[in-house]
Parts: sequence; C-alpha cells; structure tokens
Amino acid sequence: MEFSQLIQERYSVRAYKPDPVEDEKLQEILEAARLAPTAANRQAFQIIVVHTEGRKEELRRIYNRDWFVQAPIILVACGLPSRAWTRKDNENYGVVDVAIVMDHIVLASANLGLGTCWIAAFYADATREILNLPEGVEPIVMTPLGYPNDAPKPKIRKSLDELVRYEHW
Amino acid sequence: MEFSQLIQERYSVRAYKPDPVEDEKLQEILEAARLAPTAANRQAFQIIVVHTEGRKEELRRIYNRDWFVQAPIILVACGLPSRAWTRKDNENYGVVDVAIVMDHIVLASANLGLGTCWIAAFYADATREILNLPEGVEPIVMTPLGYPNDAPKPKIRKSLDELVRYEHW
Repeated sequence: MEFSQLIQERYSVRAYKPDPVEDEKLQEILEAARLAPTAANRQAFQIIVVHTEGRKEELRRIYNRDWFVQAPIILVACGLPSRAWTRKDNENYGVVDVAIVMDHIVLASANLGLGTCWIAAFYADATREILNLPEGVEPIVMTPLGYPNDAPKPKIRKSLDELVRYEHW
Repeated sequence: MEFSQLIQERYSVRAYKPDPVEDEKLQEILEAARLAPTAANRQAFQIIVVHTEGRKEELRRIYNRDWFVQAPIILVACGLPSRAWTRKDNENYGVVDVAIVMDHIVLASANLGLGTCWIAAFYADATREILNLPEGVEPIVMTPLGYPNDAPKPKIRKSLDELVRYEHW
C-alpha cells in the first residue's frame, strides 16, 4: 500500500478473529522489523513471537484484556540496553530503537491486512516471568497480531498548529 | 511508494543538495507525523522546523557535520515528558511517542524523494540554547531534510535468527 494511505488506514485493533497468521506474512513483518534503522546500527533489540493458543489465561497476567489474548500471536519488542548506543551525556537510545522496530512491525502488518495495537500498559514483572526474559532483556512495547474483527474509528489528533513550531522562518 | 519498497529504499542521507524543500512536501511530512499513534493518544510532542539558511555556523554547535547544515531544513522532534503517558510503575512513554513520530517523518520524506538521517549524537545543551527550548521540551531525535546528494549503500543487518525468539512455538 502507498505509505500515505497506509498511515491513514492503520488503527488500533481491539478485536481479533481466531484465524491464524500465515507464516509467510509473519516473516514479512519480521523482515520489516529487521530493516528498521537503529542508533549506530547496534540492532540492540529482540522480538519475541508468542503464540497464544493454550495459554490465554496465563498471558492475561501480562495485559488483562479479552482482545489481547484473542489474537493468535503476540509480538513483544524488547530492548537490550547494555548493547544499545549511548550518547556522551549517558542518554541511552535503546528505547528509541525498539520504538522504530515496533513502528515497522505495526505498519508492515497493516500493509498485509493484519491488525495490531501498541501496548505499553502491560505488567512488566509478569512479562519477564511468563516469557522467561533474562536479565538485560527489557520489554518495551508489545502488540497482538491477527486479523481484525472490528472497524476503524476516525483518528483524533491535534492540529499541526499545536504540534509544530517554526524556528527562524 | 509501496511500504515494503519504501523501507528498503530509505537510507541515512549524509550529503544534501542546497535545493529548497517545497512547502507542500514539508506539510505532507508534518501531516504524517501528526497521524503517528502515541501512548494513550497524548500527542506529547513538538516538532521544530529549523531553516538552516544564514545560521549554519551556529547550528554546527548542535551537531558538527558539514552535511547536517547542508540541508535546507532540520526537523527536531521533542518530547513533552510531563504530558506523556506514564505507566503505573512510572515508566514514561514520551520517548517512544517521539520515536514513532520521527519514524513517520523519515518514511514520509523518503516517500517524497527527500533525504533524512536519524541523529541522536547531538549536543543537547546547545540544542536547548540555540532553539530556545523552554523547560519541559526535551530534544530526543533530529534529522536534516533535503534532497539527497549521495547514493544509498546496502543495509547491514543481523539475521532474523539473531533478532527473533519464538516462545512456545
């Protein structure tokens, strides 16, 4: 899909069909993540592919919504802060890297007719425990991945006047 | 451009033509930023549009590269952390929001034939001073914006085996 149309059509999907995600589509989504630029090309991230079948009750401890575990797959984007690029003033850019990766995942999914929803309001401790995350692998954002079972709502956004400042125009 | 082609073709542009960026294209890029999803739809960001003409020496104090000030425009994506969504465990998602916004900017620019380069290695103090950033407006990432005057290099990326873990396949 043309990019300008894609960013209009992507929306936060909060109801999923039980239909499986074809492996070919999953691989194309992961490939989009792989191509994401990261600070100093450190690629300090890990994507965890979680199949929800047979473990929905357990996964609800991560984020307790029906639609979260309705999707056949959950993708968890983790940062590896000790490997990420850090500026001289100690600002670590690992979180920025992971956000770019997830943005590629979300857009690539919409481009294939699949639904996602950015989730930050998960329980980090439960995530670490249930996904057996080792020390140094930090869950930053996650999304269900599956075929949408709802309809998009109009986007509510501030005007450009509120979001943009022209310096020295 | 088709999204899968767009993410292949985007690259970090490190030489720019002096040609101006048409205002129509700038507005389309800012509109892509406006459509970016943000945590709890807080839209806690500000984009600063900086024209480099007549102030190149000053702007080098932000990031001292010829190509940085060669572009006619620099876009600075700032977070407004006090307005951003914060999780119960105090994780503030303002940086994730700004990264999504910048990813939309970078991809929308490439879609219009314009070049960008994610920059994190800027001097934050000089940025605040030169752009007169008030307290609470935090520069997170920036990019030059202009027509490319170099050629893309092949992307160097890890294999999916190194970046993806399958949980409970």
